[in-house]
Amino acid sequence: MGRKKLEGFTRFEEYESALSKLLTRVNMSLEQEKTSVTESVGRIAAEDIHSLRDYPPVDRSALDGYAVRSLDVLSASPSNPAILKIVGSVEAGELPRFSINAGEAAIVFTGAPIPEGSDAVVPFEEAIREGNTVHVLRPVQKYKNVSRAGEDIKSGDLIIRKGYIIRPWHVAALIEAGFTEVKVFRKPRVGIINVGSELMASENNRIPNSTGPLIYAYLKELGCEPVLIGVVPDDEEEILKTVLRSLQDFDILITTGGTSVGGKDLVPEALSRISDATLIFHGVNLRPGRTAGAYLIKGKPVLMFSGLPVAALVGLEAFFKPLIKHLTGATLLPEPTLRVKVRRRVTNVVGFKSFFRVVVYREDNELFMEPLRLTGSGIISTLIKGNAILVVNENIEGYDEGDYVDVVLIGPIYEKRPEFLE
Amino acid sequence: MGRKKLEGFTRFEEYESALSKLLTRVNMSLEQEKTSVTESVGRIAAEDIHSLRDYPPVDRSALDGYAVRSLDVLSASPSNPAILKIVGSVEAGELPRFSINAGEAAIVFTGAPIPEGSDAVVPFEEAIREGNTVHVLRPVQKYKNVSRAGEDIKSGDLIIRKGYIIRPWHVAALIEAGFTEVKVFRKPRVGIINVGSELMASENNRIPNSTGPLIYAYLKELGCEPVLIGVVPDDEEEILKTVLRSLQDFDILITTGGTSVGGKDLVPEALSRISDATLIFHGVNLRPGRTAGAYLIKGKPVLMFSGLPVAALVGLEAFFKPLIKHLTGATLLPEPTLRVKVRRRVTNVVGFKSFFRVVVYREDNELFMEPLRLTGSGIISTLIKGNAILVVNENIEGYDEGDYVDVVLIGPIYEKRPEFLE
Repeated sequence: MGRKKLEGFTRFEEYESALSKLLTRVNMSLEQEKTSVTESVGRIAAEDIHSLRDYPPVDRSALDGYAVRSLDVLSASPSNPAILKIVGSVEAGELPRFSINAGEAAIVFTGAPIPEGSDAVVPFEEAIREGNTVHVLRPVQKYKNVSRAGEDIKSGDLIIRKGYIIRPWHVAALIEAGFTEVKVFRKPRVGIINVGSELMASENNRIPNSTGPLIYAYLKELGCEPVLIGVVPDDEEEILKTVLRSLQDFDILITTGGTSVGGKDLVPEALSRISDATLIFHGVNLRPGRTAGAYLIKGKPVLMFSGLPVAALVGLEAFFKPLIKHLTGATLLPEPTLRVKVRRRVTNVVGFKSFFRVVVYREDNELFMEPLRLTGSGIISTLIKGNAILVVNENIEGYDEGDYVDVVLIGPIYEKRPEFLE
Repeated sequence: MGRKKLEGFTRFEEYESALSKLLTRVNMSLEQEKTSVTESVGRIAAEDIHSLRDYPPVDRSALDGYAVRSLDVLSASPSNPAILKIVGSVEAGELPRFSINAGEAAIVFTGAPIPEGSDAVVPFEEAIREGNTVHVLRPVQKYKNVSRAGEDIKSGDLIIRKGYIIRPWHVAALIEAGFTEVKVFRKPRVGIINVGSELMASENNRIPNSTGPLIYAYLKELGCEPVLIGVVPDDEEEILKTVLRSLQDFDILITTGGTSVGGKDLVPEALSRISDATLIFHGVNLRPGRTAGAYLIKGKPVLMFSGLPVAALVGLEAFFKPLIKHLTGATLLPEPTLRVKVRRRVTNVVGFKSFFRVVVYREDNELFMEPLRLTGSGIISTLIKGNAILVVNENIEGYDEGDYVDVVLIGPIYEKRPEFLE
């Protein structure tokens, strides 16, 4: 009963080593495509993008007021105002058809180019208008209330770096920098194959396929283009056929199930029969998720994860996310990390990098953390009740009550210790 | 020249008061709709959802091994193993067609229901098989390696709370709980109207409309359904017509531009002419963004923001995001907040709640923060170079070098002090 195969897992590969092999071996490059700047939010820039022009293009008024020559009002005071003649007005969107000479001023509105000769703007409310003249009561600094040409963006300025996720402010800056389109990475197409006869059994005895949609949702959140290829029975031929047929349509394949050691270790068996398939790793010191593995087939990665949802999720975090970062050079947004005080001891199995699902709550104005009782890697409710993840490295035995640890929040903080912690 | 109107802004309304008026006055409710669970990630649950069933539905094996009666192996040891007769095997997805009596065992694979009579599973690698018998070397606890029926989810358990954003693990749990569809809030339809003749000027003198796409991108990131209605000239009639025509198609309207005090304060003027329009607030102690305002027209909110991109963004954060939370009861994900050490003094204008764009970088293993030199509210490059936002409340004068403050990260941390800080 598979005594030989069992020995394959008597030692689990170190996570760092498995990941490094994966990233080294996968050399594909994602295609690039152009998209309209307006629709580009959330996409990953495929190149460093530099401004095509100065912005603003001309000196403009930052508010509604009087464009003046700062020299003219140098000694203005409430008792001795500078009296200037209003020679015209400029609306935003107009080009001034006149210039300002000594003793003159112009009405300018927010965003309007200031006329040649003027170099500062006095707000309406800081001056007194009398018919065709304006009385300025105080001196004004050169360029005061003026948006200088190029003061925001200069031609050649870096707007976004390759690999950055485009946020709303990048959209605005790209438009100001002269772009209507932007080069982004095509969304990675990822096919999901769920192996397991139990997922196909008759109505009464069927295990619902929750891991497939979990992965689908995770990939969508991450900006990929996932497809649920379907459920395949525990049959080497079927697995082989499905993988070979799918490879050409996707950048990456993910299989779930059939990776545990025993009579049903079918996915690795099936893949090993493909002539140009090479095993990258199989079996890794992750808890949960130790049955994860990866093959390289025709240059494309095939990631093999557990059929149990929490173990599959750890596989995605531990291998898929770094792979996407590697392929796109993406700098993902920082995750919401929080320093919290351990309220109940966390015990690690030394040698394993463990992902604890924990509960973070507020008490007496401090943030506390308790691990959820360690249960199977299929127990999805730990991610529903839990609101944070604590990653404990393989050389750490655990954390004691009173220790401080950093956790990644995945849900809102509880405002008191929840009752389900008993 | 608008002397009377100017006085409207000699005092700015407190932000908290303006926001509270907005949330109190807007009483619309967003429609709900059903969506497939698989496609529901990122949507907002429109009701508390409780499980329809127990999960797992039956006691199942958590690994590949032998299903046994724990009583039979109570005194097993390597020198005195319990020898059990193998009476059958169960695959995942099968229903056992036999039961286990004293002295018997069954081969079970991961996910397989365990036969009646058995109450624990011994992993393959911890027992020795000899033909049709298995030698168990150690006792095994009752229910060891068994996923109990209902141990993950019990019928009636809360899977997701109204207002929560659906994450990948909710998708898996909803499927296990028996759902294929889920009730979510319809995505809020938001129309964006950009006012400004300068945005429509002839090629040479046109200011590009960057604030419209900025808002569009922000709303998409937030899960709304935005539409850029278009650019409208500085003309009260045109503004009025566009707002009235658009109201029926959207849940919320956002206008930009034409809100500053002066000769061009056109949007509030136009809206005030609508018979059942009521002003909620106009002018607020935010920096940037003090010209923000809101009307209620035919029961729908019309938010008026500055045409300058950074000021508009502050308006979105300060008013739009809380409004969406209010309308959906949404519990948004925690933002990535970081405690950092002030490296250069931050000076606030007392009386204003200010949004400083700052730079966070690492030096000597500590995180430091410096504000970007305060520039106009149109300067988008501060959000490109800056990687965090510091919000300073109106009663705070500022922070000194050496103080610790909490900032919200909007981009990756610099690994050293960037050169542009000079």
